[in-house]
Amino acid sequence: MQHGGNLHDAKALFPEAPEPWIDLSTGINPNAYPVSLPDLRAFTRLPSPQEVGHTEAVAARAYGVSDPARVVATAGSQATIRLLPRLRDKSKVAIVGPTYSEHERSWVSEGHDIQVATSLADALALTPDVVVIANPNNPDGRIADPTELAEAASILHRRGGWLVVDEAFADLDDEASIAGKKLPGTIVLRSFGKAYGLAGVRLGFAICDPVFSVRIREELGPWAVSGPALALGAQALGDAAWLADQKVRLARACLVLDELLTRADFHIVGGTRLFRLARHPQAGDWFERLARSGIWVRKFNHEQTILRLGIPQEEMWDRLRGALA
Amino acid sequence: MQHGGNLHDAKALFPEAPEPWIDLSTGINPNAYPVSLPDLRAFTRLPSPQEVGHTEAVAARAYGVSDPARVVATAGSQATIRLLPRLRDKSKVAIVGPTYSEHERSWVSEGHDIQVATSLADALALTPDVVVIANPNNPDGRIADPTELAEAASILHRRGGWLVVDEAFADLDDEASIAGKKLPGTIVLRSFGKAYGLAGVRLGFAICDPVFSVRIREELGPWAVSGPALALGAQALGDAAWLADQKVRLARACLVLDELLTRADFHIVGGTRLFRLARHPQAGDWFERLARSGIWVRKFNHEQTILRLGIPQEEMWDRLRGALA
Repeated sequence: MQHGGNLHDAKALFPEAPEPWIDLSTGINPNAYPVSLPDLRAFTRLPSPQEVGHTEAVAARAYGVSDPARVVATAGSQATIRLLPRLRDKSKVAIVGPTYSEHERSWVSEGHDIQVATSLADALALTPDVVVIANPNNPDGRIADPTELAEAASILHRRGGWLVVDEAFADLDDEASIAGKKLPGTIVLRSFGKAYGLAGVRLGFAICDPVFSVRIREELGPWAVSGPALALGAQALGDAAWLADQKVRLARACLVLDELLTRADFHIVGGTRLFRLARHPQAGDWFERLARSGIWVRKFNHEQTILRLGIPQEEMWDRLRGALA
Repeated sequence: MQHGGNLHDAKALFPEAPEPWIDLSTGINPNAYPVSLPDLRAFTRLPSPQEVGHTEAVAARAYGVSDPARVVATAGSQATIRLLPRLRDKSKVAIVGPTYSEHERSWVSEGHDIQVATSLADALALTPDVVVIANPNNPDGRIADPTELAEAASILHRRGGWLVVDEAFADLDDEASIAGKKLPGTIVLRSFGKAYGLAGVRLGFAICDPVFSVRIREELGPWAVSGPALALGAQALGDAAWLADQKVRLARACLVLDELLTRADFHIVGGTRLFRLARHPQAGDWFERLARSGIWVRKFNHEQTILRLGIPQEEMWDRLRGALA
């Protein structure tokens, strides 16, 4: 699974496509949180531990975490994904996949033994030290059973292991989240940029036992998150009403997108409120056809008959409707 | 050496001090680069490899580096300081100190053998695999001889080692810089925030052999630097005239500060255009006296008779003059 957002590649491969490109290759909310740009001092001064603590406390409330000491701000969940494999001796790691490719890449690059399992039960059957699961999963939106997650956490914790739960897509599909549950040995990753449409600021959170959150903080060192990211994060994560409104708005958008895809003989096989996964025997042809119309979606190397489509901006629906007709 | 910028501590220890506090505890330019806040898209979209490459190319020109492939953008030089010790097996590391404390902390925390030497020659005499030197040094502003640096790089490179040169304070004191010299086995760290007064955005650069810069990029993973940092970095680093003007302006400010300190019976022992290091037998008393006047300077655990003072904002000179009188 390659990364989305590579519009430069799109333009190079399809130079004749109409501009502007509609980028549906990512799972980023097209309705960015209406930020007030932060005071210039967020740019000029080093962020203080108190500013970090404030944003973490706001994030804790947003994620339903009662103890803010369990929450560590990072420069995007990607930063935590890179860090975690460095904090263990060589371990047996089972990844529930296919999923976001950076998990496997990070654990492999630190020399761990990786196996990919297709379910949480299969992953546990490998008797690993660490299980990594995205919940909801990317790209299929699959949601793990919370009881099964709690049991997995308990089993792994007893053997000194970890359950790593990537909740990058759980803000708008929060029935999946276990962030507030204090499961022992569990590290939950949250992404700020996707749900709030502010992926450029680089902000994410690790949620875990307070002893381990201290360790993550130590490893990241001082000033790991920028002042503007902390300021915008506190603004947006404090606005529960906006998020609730987005849930409704994006759920409606998903219905419309599913209908357009179904009419074009796609079969919807999964998704979250930020992307839909759809199958078509000629998915490759559709990928090219959409690209020639200036619409960039995600295809997958491991599975040629599926495409993943993000949610378009309001003013782009007509072009998408035309291209899928 | 503790970090500066901890005004929260200042307020807690000296609650009666007049506000606003004058923070001279950091070496950050008080004249922030007059940025145009970036387009909202820098916040909403994931930064593309092309945006990263553009900012790196502008940085390469600013630092006198002919090959932009030698330059890697990071989220502050602190990010590179944390990363480098992870990229070597257990090594013998000699740090030319006292210097910025995060170097020692980072190498120690990854299990390397650390020794601190008081000069580059003494460091090399320890037959280390890695030498770390800040140039100009923080806090004393000492500048290493460029011939000696080149020789050290060559010796270390022959044994598979590294010369790590932290040029965090070399933008405004650039006679010290070896960034453009292509010394084999040398990794130069640059900080964006200090000279441009934009420490909150978290931007820095590693400059090294292109083979090694690819490795750093891989280790950092995608989107390691925020969109706003890339945009503001490209703006400011492209403005050579502003930097030249700051050199003159800050050199004058240093003269004024040195004179105020000398009149108060301090002896100036070093510094750069962004801070002055001054000795006084009663430095501890002066620290408290300044703090009670709402002026926060840096003191050092290892050396009780010196203080480090940053450059005040234009409108703060009168209060500083009064406090030092």
